Amino acid sequence: MINVGIAGATGYTGEELIAILLRHPEVRITNVSASADRLKPISEIIPKFSGRIGLMCNKLNVDALIDDCDLVFLALPHTVSMDFVPKLLKAGKRVIDLSADYRFKDTDIYEQYYQVSHKDRANLKGAVYGLPELYRQKIKNASLVANPGCYPTAAIIGLAPIIAINSIDTSSIIIDAKSGVSGAGKKLSPEYLFSEVTDDFRAYKVNMHQHAPEIIQVLSNLSKKKVRLTFVPHLLPLKRGILETMYIRTRNAVKITQDLLSLYRKFYQKEPFVRIKEAGLFPALKDVVGTNFCDIGIKADGDMIIIIAAIDNLIKGASGQAVQNLNIMYKFPERTAL
Amino acid sequence: MINVGIAGATGYTGEELIAILLRHPEVRITNVSASADRLKPISEIIPKFSGRIGLMCNKLNVDALIDDCDLVFLALPHTVSMDFVPKLLKAGKRVIDLSADYRFKDTDIYEQYYQVSHKDRANLKGAVYGLPELYRQKIKNASLVANPGCYPTAAIIGLAPIIAINSIDTSSIIIDAKSGVSGAGKKLSPEYLFSEVTDDFRAYKVNMHQHAPEIIQVLSNLSKKKVRLTFVPHLLPLKRGILETMYIRTRNAVKITQDLLSLYRKFYQKEPFVRIKEAGLFPALKDVVGTNFCDIGIKADGDMIIIIAAIDNLIKGASGQAVQNLNIMYKFPERTAL
Amino acid sequence: MINVGIAGATGYTGEELIAILLRHPEVRITNVSASADRLKPISEIIPKFSGRIGLMCNKLNVDALIDDCDLVFLALPHTVSMDFVPKLLKAGKRVIDLSADYRFKDTDIYEQYYQVSHKDRANLKGAVYGLPELYRQKIKNASLVANPGCYPTAAIIGLAPIIAINSIDTSSIIIDAKSGVSGAGKKLSPEYLFSEVTDDFRAYKVNMHQHAPEIIQVLSNLSKKKVRLTFVPHLLPLKRGILETMYIRTRNAVKITQDLLSLYRKFYQKEPFVRIKEAGLFPALKDVVGTNFCDIGIKADGDMIIIIAAIDNLIKGASGQAVQNLNIMYKFPERTAL
Amino acid sequence: MINVGIAGATGYTGEELIAILLRHPEVRITNVSASADRLKPISEIIPKFSGRIGLMCNKLNVDALIDDCDLVFLALPHTVSMDFVPKLLKAGKRVIDLSADYRFKDTDIYEQYYQVSHKDRANLKGAVYGLPELYRQKIKNASLVANPGCYPTAAIIGLAPIIAINSIDTSSIIIDAKSGVSGAGKKLSPEYLFSEVTDDFRAYKVNMHQHAPEIIQVLSNLSKKKVRLTFVPHLLPLKRGILETMYIRTRNAVKITQDLLSLYRKFYQKEPFVRIKEAGLFPALKDVVGTNFCDIGIKADGDMIIIIAAIDNLIKGASGQAVQNLNIMYKFPERTAL
Repeated sequence: MINVGIAGATGYTGEELIAILLRHPEVRITNVSASADRLKPISEIIPKFSGRIGLMCNKLNVDALIDDCDLVFLALPHTVSMDFVPKLLKAGKRVIDLSADYRFKDTDIYEQYYQVSHKDRANLKGAVYGLPELYRQKIKNASLVANPGCYPTAAIIGLAPIIAINSIDTSSIIIDAKSGVSGAGKKLSPEYLFSEVTDDFRAYKVNMHQHAPEIIQVLSNLSKKKVRLTFVPHLLPLKRGILETMYIRTRNAVKITQDLLSLYRKFYQKEPFVRIKEAGLFPALKDVVGTNFCDIGIKADGDMIIIIAAIDNLIKGASGQAVQNLNIMYKFPERTAL
Repeated sequence: MINVGIAGATGYTGEELIAILLRHPEVRITNVSASADRLKPISEIIPKFSGRIGLMCNKLNVDALIDDCDLVFLALPHTVSMDFVPKLLKAGKRVIDLSADYRFKDTDIYEQYYQVSHKDRANLKGAVYGLPELYRQKIKNASLVANPGCYPTAAIIGLAPIIAINSIDTSSIIIDAKSGVSGAGKKLSPEYLFSEVTDDFRAYKVNMHQHAPEIIQVLSNLSKKKVRLTFVPHLLPLKRGILETMYIRTRNAVKITQDLLSLYRKFYQKEPFVRIKEAGLFPALKDVVGTNFCDIGIKADGDMIIIIAAIDNLIKGASGQAVQNLNIMYKFPERTAL
Repeated sequence: MINVGIAGATGYTGEELIAILLRHPEVRITNVSASADRLKPISEIIPKFSGRIGLMCNKLNVDALIDDCDLVFLALPHTVSMDFVPKLLKAGKRVIDLSADYRFKDTDIYEQYYQVSHKDRANLKGAVYGLPELYRQKIKNASLVANPGCYPTAAIIGLAPIIAINSIDTSSIIIDAKSGVSGAGKKLSPEYLFSEVTDDFRAYKVNMHQHAPEIIQVLSNLSKKKVRLTFVPHLLPLKRGILETMYIRTRNAVKITQDLLSLYRKFYQKEPFVRIKEAGLFPALKDVVGTNFCDIGIKADGDMIIIIAAIDNLIKGASGQAVQNLNIMYKFPERTAL
Repeated sequence: MINVGIAGATGYTGEELIAILLRHPEVRITNVSASADRLKPISEIIPKFSGRIGLMCNKLNVDALIDDCDLVFLALPHTVSMDFVPKLLKAGKRVIDLSADYRFKDTDIYEQYYQVSHKDRANLKGAVYGLPELYRQKIKNASLVANPGCYPTAAIIGLAPIIAINSIDTSSIIIDAKSGVSGAGKKLSPEYLFSEVTDDFRAYKVNMHQHAPEIIQVLSNLSKKKVRLTFVPHLLPLKRGILETMYIRTRNAVKITQDLLSLYRKFYQKEPFVRIKEAGLFPALKDVVGTNFCDIGIKADGDMIIIIAAIDNLIKGASGQAVQNLNIMYKFPERTAL
């Protein structure tokens, strides 16, 4: 039985962490905190937890986290996590950080996209990028896991097998991504008001989204050369789910759909949370929302390959993957609570 | 051709006023203003008007309104309108105020529900409650029209004929009201974020909503005795539309559905925007959204009468009714632009 | 470990039963069937179960159910269940029927509302109405449980405590009910097409819904006199959830909100799935959707009492309650898998 | 004043035609028909037209159309229109056909994608593809206008200027298209039920949609060589609107966003219904839904050009464009009623 804390418990990823961990038989939530002004039961702030969890939601306090927890989930805004990580690690705690603060090995890219200087380069080196499908071995012993972004999770799982065999044109990867509104968190901005989003659909941050360099970093490592990416995210009028339609071209030979499906099935044969669709079938958000699965469909047509990947952005794209990482770190069966 | 100004042009009712007036052949919009910091084309603030209106959106300025306009629509927050009305009236302008500031003859009720003291009692007396179905004659010559609230519009149109015949139990009127989210305007509150409203439904301000006394005032005048009202509004996961299900009991005799339908058809026979459904049929939001209609369905069952009324809260419940009032004030055909 | 079958596995309640039972440690699903023409993996019909359940979906066959199962859930259309129940009971199987076929003690009412004659009066007498909050003792030993309707579940839980103390006007109970679209099942009717339901809201079966007599039967038993009910259901533009706003009048004394809340808390103090809100707070669908909870809020105002109850129609209103009944029948902890 | 008929008045495009034509000062609707069994007022079938149009909806009858109309809109399913066109043309009527039957000059393609043989090759030659932005001159005198498909309208308007200058790689055009559900009409298929579509998003007919060859035909004509297209449509959980994100590569030179915007502004400078967004801004469905506009945003990044186009699929993508064509055919101001 391990004791865990959730810093940033009142956002959507914090709420989802609570929901998942409440059904985890090996975990006890011992500390939930947020930036709120005053102490309140977490079940008063999030009424759906009424009768299910008795904890008070504290003001974020690193010493209390150290006292109460073996492992801490940081579900904090980007640039805030790195204020807390050094102390937690120093006290011997394990940390799963859901922000972007420890995802980039190259701090220049981080600083360009997140517009702050990095304050904890010391711990950056040891941070493990928490995508189990690629880095499970490193996650096992990690003290600090940088939990991947939501768009990158679907993109990397969707592209890794084809990138790894090194036969595609890496200068021509296009990701047309669509996300539900919870990806923006509970940000109080007019553009996320119900009356603005419902019945609407639009692209945003066209080819300038901060998740593009995260995808590029991982794929470039895999392909051993710098990939070039066109990444256009769109906002769907729904709360949960990401679906990415990816277009890539082969470098030389034409590909056959069935061969690609075999390649993907083999690559992910031991993965508990990746499902490859049959030829002619493609993912739908409703099949993955509420689950930790990433569903993938593929179609090849001449030298064009279309790959579609779907996840729940709050689960496989955030809190579910974080718990999957915890399960790996503590050698619990990987599906526990998921 | 008359010149009109819209103060508060960037809210939902302001936007709807622009949309309606752009197709009005007798009206020229000459001034649009808001509390924005800097001058901007209104078509930049509301991109759907791009290529359709060239006006700049000014900071609200009463002298400019007086210079530019014959009539001014005030689509301002409650308690703000009464700062502007006195000057506009003094300058001989006609005013249609979409706020609650001039709806109550009894300032005590206004002050209790809107939590401010009334600053312009002088003009309150002359203000006409702008519900054409009841007060068309007074509206014709009004200088100041207090445009009704959205819930009251549907409630009063739905109840007036049965109240007027004075055979119901006025101590037992129940209105179960449901409104789309635009009724809350563009208020930046977490409860109106897309991710909070979608897939949700809930009651709010249970039996303590500020529209209840507005309904009571009008119905009590009609019935010549004080009516007692139970009013429970709910928030629908959609942008536009109000549907109210009303339950009333007859005082003595049992009513027959067909008789009630006849009563209503007669009461509203000359009304261009009230439609009474056949027996067994009831209103649906989609039939009235985008229109200035109020649709009504009725069923009697013993001494219980069920009346259902539906409107578009932004049109018949606000901007459409305001233009209907303008048409009456200037003797344009009442359906013009509607 | 018990073996259970689900007849009617491809509808929304069947799908929800599978989802719940897959996390039940004491239950093995051994038979899923539907009226489909040909054998197919259930995970092909409902792709979200891909990788989670390997069963084929059979054509409904009572002998196979008898061979494979200890208990059978019948998630079949009304009037179909009674074709299967006699054989299953005769073979010593326990049955939880989610249809209306065994809910009415008075077959006249059943026949009037469901428009068929009842074919299995023999087993009607022994059928237990499966609302644990009222009938837990009888459910324990039941062979045949008639799982309550979705509207009745929220209505009865919401009204039982106040009905039981026998101080309200039972001739004046009004239920204004709102349900998500999944309440209609997967019925292929134009009125349930996405483009017809989205952005719409309307009443239907106004005061003539088949769930009204079910509510009346239970409440009349409780109050020991025939109650009279006005019941108006409405269709919400969302998939899951029922919220009912109920209006009742006290017979003599005025009621105080806090007293009513105390009454309700006491009545339900041992219930694992009923939550009473604090004064001034009311249920929201999002707090109960995905759970087996029924949330209740109450406000008294003079002799008028407003009670609001909310459930997930597919869980507490159907499949969750069915599993709660199974847990009671087999003495599993009542919250197991819920 | 011209007399028009609408064959197929009860589908979504028929309904939208009625809505638009009711505000057209030069048009009288004289015949509305559908495949319904019995005569009914159209306002009973589509209650929102109650009190606005008095016509009966007839069973489709070509002789009645000839008697009653100068021009007929055929809002019929694909393959049905060509049964009626020959007689209408022979009788000297003008026809605007909203189906695909007269869009393809090459009947092989039509027959491959629509799975029937073409029955009216005689009239195919004279049919004019009704996209005013490219073919206004021909439309003026056309007897038979083949109104474009919804996806092709946005795609062709979005790509025509860049295709026409002949400097892009026409073997590498990718269209990632997203459409509201009304694009599927009122088809009674389980996949279009509200509970299946809401909160979902998925691709369909991946690179095999029947609108791809329509786009290819027009773009190939423009570029004077055969273009190759990758076309992946997706289903949005909303009723109205199409947004297409298009990815193309320049053949040689790098492009600058501002130059492309200038090119587009010049190309469409006289077009009443095409709006080019400023650099950095992109279309949103809510700006075009309810209008006949096509909004376009562009971003160039090295040799990659991203073009985003948005329309209302029922207006610019169907009925609005049909009325725009009528206005051109009869020399009415092109914006009339739009």
